[in-house]
Amino acid sequence: MNTQENATARVETFSDGVFAVAATLLVLGLHVTATAGHLATALGREWPHYATYVVSFLTIGIIWLNHHAQFGRIERADRTLMVLNLVLLMFVTLIPFSTNLLADHLRVPSDQHVAAAVYAGSLLAMGISFFATYVWAIHAGLFSERITERHAGYLIRRNAVGLVVYVVAIAIAFVSATVSLALCGLTALYYLHPGRSLENGVD
Amino acid sequence: MNTQENATARVETFSDGVFAVAATLLVLGLHVTATAGHLATALGREWPHYATYVVSFLTIGIIWLNHHAQFGRIERADRTLMVLNLVLLMFVTLIPFSTNLLADHLRVPSDQHVAAAVYAGSLLAMGISFFATYVWAIHAGLFSERITERHAGYLIRRNAVGLVVYVVAIAIAFVSATVSLALCGLTALYYLHPGRSLENGVD
Amino acid sequence: MNTQENATARVETFSDGVFAVAATLLVLGLHVTATAGHLATALGREWPHYATYVVSFLTIGIIWLNHHAQFGRIERADRTLMVLNLVLLMFVTLIPFSTNLLADHLRVPSDQHVAAAVYAGSLLAMGISFFATYVWAIHAGLFSERITERHAGYLIRRNAVGLVVYVVAIAIAFVSATVSLALCGLTALYYLHPGRSLENGVD
Amino acid sequence: MNTQENATARVETFSDGVFAVAATLLVLGLHVTATAGHLATALGREWPHYATYVVSFLTIGIIWLNHHAQFGRIERADRTLMVLNLVLLMFVTLIPFSTNLLADHLRVPSDQHVAAAVYAGSLLAMGISFFATYVWAIHAGLFSERITERHAGYLIRRNAVGLVVYVVAIAIAFVSATVSLALCGLTALYYLHPGRSLENGVD
Repeated sequence: MNTQENATARVETFSDGVFAVAATLLVLGLHVTATAGHLATALGREWPHYATYVVSFLTIGIIWLNHHAQFGRIERADRTLMVLNLVLLMFVTLIPFSTNLLADHLRVPSDQHVAAAVYAGSLLAMGISFFATYVWAIHAGLFSERITERHAGYLIRRNAVGLVVYVVAIAIAFVSATVSLALCGLTALYYLHPGRSLENGVD
Repeated sequence: MNTQENATARVETFSDGVFAVAATLLVLGLHVTATAGHLATALGREWPHYATYVVSFLTIGIIWLNHHAQFGRIERADRTLMVLNLVLLMFVTLIPFSTNLLADHLRVPSDQHVAAAVYAGSLLAMGISFFATYVWAIHAGLFSERITERHAGYLIRRNAVGLVVYVVAIAIAFVSATVSLALCGLTALYYLHPGRSLENGVD
Repeated sequence: MNTQENATARVETFSDGVFAVAATLLVLGLHVTATAGHLATALGREWPHYATYVVSFLTIGIIWLNHHAQFGRIERADRTLMVLNLVLLMFVTLIPFSTNLLADHLRVPSDQHVAAAVYAGSLLAMGISFFATYVWAIHAGLFSERITERHAGYLIRRNAVGLVVYVVAIAIAFVSATVSLALCGLTALYYLHPGRSLENGVD
Repeated sequence: MNTQENATARVETFSDGVFAVAATLLVLGLHVTATAGHLATALGREWPHYATYVVSFLTIGIIWLNHHAQFGRIERADRTLMVLNLVLLMFVTLIPFSTNLLADHLRVPSDQHVAAAVYAGSLLAMGISFFATYVWAIHAGLFSERITERHAGYLIRRNAVGLVVYVVAIAIAFVSATVSLALCGLTALYYLHPGRSLENGVD
């Protein structure tokens, strides 16, 4: 068996595991305490938890989709890629924490700004790590097919969009936590669209 | 390696992970607080947790079985299918939350109706998402073998049964939470039977 | 791709996931509350948690080993096997609950007997489900190689040993919870030995 | 299908699952309680949780990387290897517990020494188990390629380094918990470097 091939395969199963567990652990942040007879009202009051749950689940899911598309085109994984991937996973794992932090403080006027900034910051950290795996894989020639310089530029611009938006979301957090969260949600929706590479099936 | 093949494989490992974690997280809802010497009684009082545990575990397990049967016959996964699958997984992940909600309130007269409606509603949301992946896979021709129009009609009717029952379970929740839960359990049992497609091994 | 082959593969990934998550969730039962300066003493007091942790982790791990050996020899998975496997996984998932229950009550004189009986009972339920998948797989001819009647008899006797010991452990729980737990631990050690089938690599 | 090959594959999926879940469960130790308006301060006070989180995540991730490199070169898994692997996984699963223990007590003067010693001790236990799988795999000739005595000696020395450092970290814990944690972190960084075997792709 080709060891390198195998290497990529196991990076993927471990990564899939971390993505799946992190996404599923988000549910532990959902809980409700209601005085008897007021469950419906209490459930309604929990909308910050639902909103952050949806944004975080989609973000993790979409990063996973892109991670999967990326590793599907990587021929071999070197140690640097694995370490960068590990750092990415470390930040993915943080998301249930920052999600709960934001959900718990979204309606607390004095703390919502800090919480939203930490939340967008955790997504930014994840985005930067993911970007780093991309740049390294291009730089070290790990992809199975040659990527044209023009396409590499496209990919880098596409990835950079998210990073810029997350930086903006951090700044906006200090004005409105809700708008900051909405920006993070819009970023997820933006990446739902596969981008040029997948449509053409080229690289 | 065929990228599309690989794509399907990784959708499956991620999905398997989310299904497995969501099913296993159900156990975190089981706990017991007993005054010394009354553990047996306290354990007995927890039957709503056992009942909802069994219904939810079987429901997740059976949706997984059908998900697995479905993806075994899908030749390639396009972006839309992946996004629909992501939405499905988001609702699967919600089940430990709605399960605990129902278990905690099944004997609270003033709140049991809302809790049971939310529970059946979460299963309905999961059912609709699963149905959507089915309809899309047929519509976009993602299955490896041609599905006859007659068979597609059968599949759609079979899936629709569950959705209708879940809608009924939501309505009945406002009359009796226990009957609503029982209906959800019966739906799981109904889907234990493989249906025509698997028996024939046709599609 | 052979659909049946694929079927077995996915039963295994889902099962592996549930086994792995259930085994890892055991750690959530470990926690310590100490007044300042008495951490070492407090950690020492937690020995029932360590003891049950080790017994449960090894039991889940060994059932997984045997599950894996079994499915490695199964050629195709039919619906009945999948449903029986689902029931097995449901009881595996219960183990973190019964483990914590026993750990929390092992030194509570009035409740330790009930807790130990529930614990051994949960292992018995898992053992019976596992046994049922074995018997069904033999009965339905799902194994890839013909199993001689003599060997089938051996396998059934070997599996039955565990069931009998668990029944004894339930009975003994009402005399001594610690002895009951020790019996469960010994059962795990017994199954560490691969048995005749694996040594010979015959079936 | 080669049963032995399959055996190794499933040891890997189960192990990957446990590694992934254990690494992701670390996030459950992160939480913050702040009085209104002091979230930023409260988050800052939590640095022991972030420090231990990073050290533990990287340690688990790197042990996984090495585990994966090792099993990629193992041709067949015998029962002893599987049992040793199970013991390794049991100690990996313990890490979220010892991590939280240290994080909770790192600034408690009277308890920090015990907590740091338990933490380094849990890493030592994991290291010894991993070392044992290595030694056994060499001893029993489970690797796919012949390992020269000189290379085996190198591998053993390389693995032993970590064990010695962890023993030192346990001793130092009683002088300074923070230095002990830092030593554990440095060990993780040391193992980030692949070592001679992977660089040469020899064994």
